[in-house]
Amino acid sequence: MAATRDRIIAATNELFRRGGYNGTSLRQVTDAAGAPTGSLYHFFPRGKAELAEAVITETGASYLELFELFAAATSDPGAAVGAFFDGAAETLEQSDYIDVCPIGTVAREVANTHDRLRGAADRVFSSWIESLGKHLEAAGLATTEATALAATVVAALEGSFVLARTRRNADVVRHTGNHMRSLVDAQLRDAHNRAQVNVGRGR
Amino acid sequence: MAATRDRIIAATNELFRRGGYNGTSLRQVTDAAGAPTGSLYHFFPRGKAELAEAVITETGASYLELFELFAAATSDPGAAVGAFFDGAAETLEQSDYIDVCPIGTVAREVANTHDRLRGAADRVFSSWIESLGKHLEAAGLATTEATALAATVVAALEGSFVLARTRRNADVVRHTGNHMRSLVDAQLRDAHNRAQVNVGRGR
Repeated sequence: MAATRDRIIAATNELFRRGGYNGTSLRQVTDAAGAPTGSLYHFFPRGKAELAEAVITETGASYLELFELFAAATSDPGAAVGAFFDGAAETLEQSDYIDVCPIGTVAREVANTHDRLRGAADRVFSSWIESLGKHLEAAGLATTEATALAATVVAALEGSFVLARTRRNADVVRHTGNHMRSLVDAQLRDAHNRAQVNVGRGR
Repeated sequence: MAATRDRIIAATNELFRRGGYNGTSLRQVTDAAGAPTGSLYHFFPRGKAELAEAVITETGASYLELFELFAAATSDPGAAVGAFFDGAAETLEQSDYIDVCPIGTVAREVANTHDRLRGAADRVFSSWIESLGKHLEAAGLATTEATALAATVVAALEGSFVLARTRRNADVVRHTGNHMRSLVDAQLRDAHNRAQVNVGRGR
């Protein structure tokens, strides 16, 4: 039974990345998952909204793990950010430009119309921002700076996906990644310079 | 008759910003515009897709004009970018967080499913990037650098809207705007420094 639930989640995730929440029917989900409608309602008795909430939460968590893998590969947060954008660009190219982000389209569609789904998407975005923020803080930024910069990186990632999908060319994701890497490097450099000035002043 | 068409475009724009393309019905459009269904089909014989294409193209053009107003207020592209983000943050707060961008949600929804609408959104995003790129080029960046940086700014703007709407707090747009301003300022500074080195070397 767990395998059926997994198939339903995976199929919904891919359909959302292709056509969004309102553009996906439960019929498409059961067809793509090879699961009967009864089993969909067995796992998600409240139907589409409950399924969508599970997809947002669970695929959001798996993307967090993916970013942590990139971050674990280096102690240099700028390099990790750049590599993550490059990886996303490759995924876009290989997947015929369906959304890399499992929740971005859905988040925009539901923000004013399904408060529960909005909340689920908010928790996922916040978990990504917190994760990157911790790496930036460990590398030398103050907490507030680190969180704000992490949010900008996630925003730029999300926005670059829409530009890449719309023009069917992922280079914009790579270039945005280079800019984010520069921004991260510059902020870390500034923080280190400030720290050295303070050491020099005996603070 | 032109007034009816304008009302239909404006109502559709607001409905798209609230619920997206697939989340908006033609019935909602005619209700919100106070227009009979017949007049919608009079102006848009091919129905929803044709209406959506007009909304994308026409509201895209009006946002381009809006950005040009910000750019015309100063010769400092970094300041214009920062002010534009600040203005967008205020609009989000005043509009109960419906999307500031008239085409971002729709672009994500249709990128894999309606190629004609994808193309229309692509032309709008490209027009914004080209406009900002020209200002950056006039301020000293090489054409390729200017275009890439302009695309990053548009991406960050788009992405910050989804974060702000999802958390119902527009500060993330302001912080992202500050980072974009820093990035623009840094790239212009680097370009000027390189130019001065070249002058110093007699090039």
